[in-house]
Amino acid sequence: MNNNKRFITNPVEIEKKSFEIIAGLLKEKQPLGNNAPIIQRVIHTTADFDYLENLVFSEDVMEKTVNILKQGVNIVTDTQMVKAGINKKGLEQLKSSVHCFIDSPEVLERAKINETTRSAAAMEFAVQNVSAPILFAIGNAPTALIKLYEMIMQGYCKPCLIIGVPVGFVNVAESKELIMELNIPFIVSRGRKGGSNVAAAIINAILYETIKLKENTEP
Amino acid sequence: MNNNKRFITNPVEIEKKSFEIIAGLLKEKQPLGNNAPIIQRVIHTTADFDYLENLVFSEDVMEKTVNILKQGVNIVTDTQMVKAGINKKGLEQLKSSVHCFIDSPEVLERAKINETTRSAAAMEFAVQNVSAPILFAIGNAPTALIKLYEMIMQGYCKPCLIIGVPVGFVNVAESKELIMELNIPFIVSRGRKGGSNVAAAIINAILYETIKLKENTEP
Repeated sequence: MNNNKRFITNPVEIEKKSFEIIAGLLKEKQPLGNNAPIIQRVIHTTADFDYLENLVFSEDVMEKTVNILKQGVNIVTDTQMVKAGINKKGLEQLKSSVHCFIDSPEVLERAKINETTRSAAAMEFAVQNVSAPILFAIGNAPTALIKLYEMIMQGYCKPCLIIGVPVGFVNVAESKELIMELNIPFIVSRGRKGGSNVAAAIINAILYETIKLKENTEP
Repeated sequence: MNNNKRFITNPVEIEKKSFEIIAGLLKEKQPLGNNAPIIQRVIHTTADFDYLENLVFSEDVMEKTVNILKQGVNIVTDTQMVKAGINKKGLEQLKSSVHCFIDSPEVLERAKINETTRSAAAMEFAVQNVSAPILFAIGNAPTALIKLYEMIMQGYCKPCLIIGVPVGFVNVAESKELIMELNIPFIVSRGRKGGSNVAAAIINAILYETIKLKENTEP
């Protein structure tokens, strides 16, 4: 048996068909508005329709982020998985970069001295070493979000966007509520759910929208 | 306000507390048996209790895999995200390695010539270039699982375990059913759900169990 005949094997076709199925399943739901590409890509990545309810967006976050991303941003992630999941060609096209400092020896040293998590120390390190505009994508560590909250409250940093989608059972839901209190653009998955895959999917959805817009408006 | 006082910030404590909460929430359910560490770690990674029903294990798969892993294996993943999510210290302790060929120029070339996905071409490349025992961890691409099925049916390879947890809406559920037809140890997430994070979580659960067992039995 040749399974090439039984299954679609063209990756572009597979993705197109997937998004058609998702759009069909979401048809009965409220209009998703400008955030539809993000919601659909997260569901594409997780097959979990809970994200239709979980995802919370600050006002006009898609438009605001796309406008900044057109000029390029520095993305900082909490895990290597988020970094690995971000589309590298898209980043390059938008003259943007992605950084993850979790394995840096300096971060390890700081975490030990300050008796905190490596994730929190990595956020501190990023704020001191990465130039603006910074977009934070947190898929795993609530302690990273809590550290960002503290630094923003103290005036040490002003990111252009925080994607706050850590997953888990301890500190997680609370850390996301903190981020929503700030006067900073955010995309958050309320409650326990989220993950590195979700963070990467949100970034990719925004990258693709920005590229589409640039291609449609530039000569 | 010092959030260090409001939240647990010690990562070991956070993980311990998380697993206690998950075990508490699962208490009413059927005894999970030897696969409990895998089921709990997947729920820890996704906060999605559907995995209690989704995950399907071939007979004695935990014991069989741990026995092979004690001597070291070569893990092959379909995505860089799965590779990034696997605990590197654990791998080192077990003299094991992890490979992902999706970005190799040779794989890209093969995919073009054979008009297939890079994921399928990467599986072929792995079977020809990685020495046994091979453990496949597929978190994204159903076409990788379908290619593995074909190669196994044709006698080209005999992996020690297939973790088949791609996510999505096209070919995905079907590709997992194929893997369960084979006479090869498997761990599969039935249906649409899964992901690179789930694949990495399953590998890590098995790594940690193997290390625990080695530490308890070796002088």
